[in-house]
Amino acid sequence: MQLIDKLKWRYATKKFDASKKVSQQNINLIKEAVQLSASSYGLQPFKVLEITNPTLREELKPLSWDQTQITDASHLFVFCNHIEVSDKDVDDLIQLKSDINQVAIDKISGYGDFVKTKLKEKTAVEMFHWTAKQTYIALSSAINACAELKIDCSPMEGFEPDAYNKKLGLKEKGLNACVLFAVGYRHDADMAQNSKKVRKPMDTIFEEI
Amino acid sequence: MQLIDKLKWRYATKKFDASKKVSQQNINLIKEAVQLSASSYGLQPFKVLEITNPTLREELKPLSWDQTQITDASHLFVFCNHIEVSDKDVDDLIQLKSDINQVAIDKISGYGDFVKTKLKEKTAVEMFHWTAKQTYIALSSAINACAELKIDCSPMEGFEPDAYNKKLGLKEKGLNACVLFAVGYRHDADMAQNSKKVRKPMDTIFEEI
Repeated sequence: MQLIDKLKWRYATKKFDASKKVSQQNINLIKEAVQLSASSYGLQPFKVLEITNPTLREELKPLSWDQTQITDASHLFVFCNHIEVSDKDVDDLIQLKSDINQVAIDKISGYGDFVKTKLKEKTAVEMFHWTAKQTYIALSSAINACAELKIDCSPMEGFEPDAYNKKLGLKEKGLNACVLFAVGYRHDADMAQNSKKVRKPMDTIFEEI
Repeated sequence: MQLIDKLKWRYATKKFDASKKVSQQNINLIKEAVQLSASSYGLQPFKVLEITNPTLREELKPLSWDQTQITDASHLFVFCNHIEVSDKDVDDLIQLKSDINQVAIDKISGYGDFVKTKLKEKTAVEMFHWTAKQTYIALSSAINACAELKIDCSPMEGFEPDAYNKKLGLKEKGLNACVLFAVGYRHDADMAQNSKKVRKPMDTIFEEI
């Protein structure tokens, strides 16, 4: 299976070749994989910021453990989770379902009411982490998309979310900097590419009961 | 790109054809995609239970909003996140790295110390949700693997985690029932397959700054 081969090929790139850029066509494919990703109730409670301003990327580097991927990668994305999901967000989803599938709102509003009720069972903290988990599903699709395209990437948790939130004015927009995603091409000198993939054995990960 | 086409094909299957079974060969490929998934620090803080006992699957159904996927899907997996990650877990990772890449422990123990320090910065609640997020990366790879194999699946949050934890004795093993994953083949009568995919427009999800 292609995905297996590509997952074996990929690795978390530590050093990118700053001279090599990913084509806009391929970036669009990676974005489309994010858009098509599954999410609970189909709510897609995330936003992905593409940091194109080079000065801003320089400024974000010290907020990211000074990691060189921030400035050297061809593209830098900040995956943000929604801090909360409101009734209006659910109404927007129902409207979108209605528009796309050409069904009357009143035929699917019961589903919307159900979703609203279920979401209200979550505490604010649970909601915050729940939207983050949905964001990670999309992140993983982006990783897999890069692998299929033989584009290198580095999903990065090594940054200061609060500093990012402040710098990018995210809280005011109801967003939180959840995880970074640097995309580009590996530098010849990236030592990490020479290591064998380290994974737990199957019988440690899986158990039949 | 294949992933895009396959993500367009897939949908969250609501009704499986209980007479159709996924081959062990394909199940092994899906498992391998889970094993190869990225995780923070490479810690893979999750375990995946395959519920093969039919009686147990019947008993889990009422704990899962009575959804028929629990009993009708060819295979049912419970993705569990580790409740915490201990120093020993980090030591085990360092040992595994040492074994696989044939490097002396003392050459990489500094990395282990760094990971231990970073993990200790997390509160128990943060740790719990952090391991869950890593689990969702693996879940997403399983979804993508199924899509590539044209096998249907249903990632399911609609269940009672506490009831699952009790029923399966998970807490005692340091595990939490994080998300379910039902795998099989769609029933002809599953209405969900007839709906068009509903996704937010690209310019709602992405923003350049």
